[in-house]
Amino acid sequence: MMSNTQTYAVTGMTCGHCESAIRSEVAQLPGVEQIEVSVSTGQLSLTVEASVEDDAVLAAVDEAGYQAVRT
Amino acid sequence: MMSNTQTYAVTGMTCGHCESAIRSEVAQLPGVEQIEVSVSTGQLSLTVEASVEDDAVLAAVDEAGYQAVRT
Repeated sequence: MMSNTQTYAVTGMTCGHCESAIRSEVAQLPGVEQIEVSVSTGQLSLTVEASVEDDAVLAAVDEAGYQAVRT
Repeated sequence: MMSNTQTYAVTGMTCGHCESAIRSEVAQLPGVEQIEVSVSTGQLSLTVEASVEDDAVLAAVDEAGYQAVRT
């Protein structure tokens, strides 16, 4: 199956623990193959099978305690 | 046994996860009864039985990835 990339701008991350918290939540989403998240850029980048609903990603980020928007 | 308070100034904490990381390490020290740690003040305050070696506290904070000095 083809892979795609979806990117999000995340606000509120201050350290590596924050990155880990987001990674842990997003990793639970079906279809997510790879996660890159950086406190320095504020970017969350997902490699996904076909696609993952933005609402599910944003809900996972919210669950970790942060806010994001699709970019 | 009498309890005493030992306080430390911690640098590098940026969020609640950082507080938790320090709390987890310091909680493993024998003789520590209560832990207060705040990212906003940068203070770590321990209620201890008699006393706990500063070196042990500083090593625990270092293990969590932060630096501290006794105040």
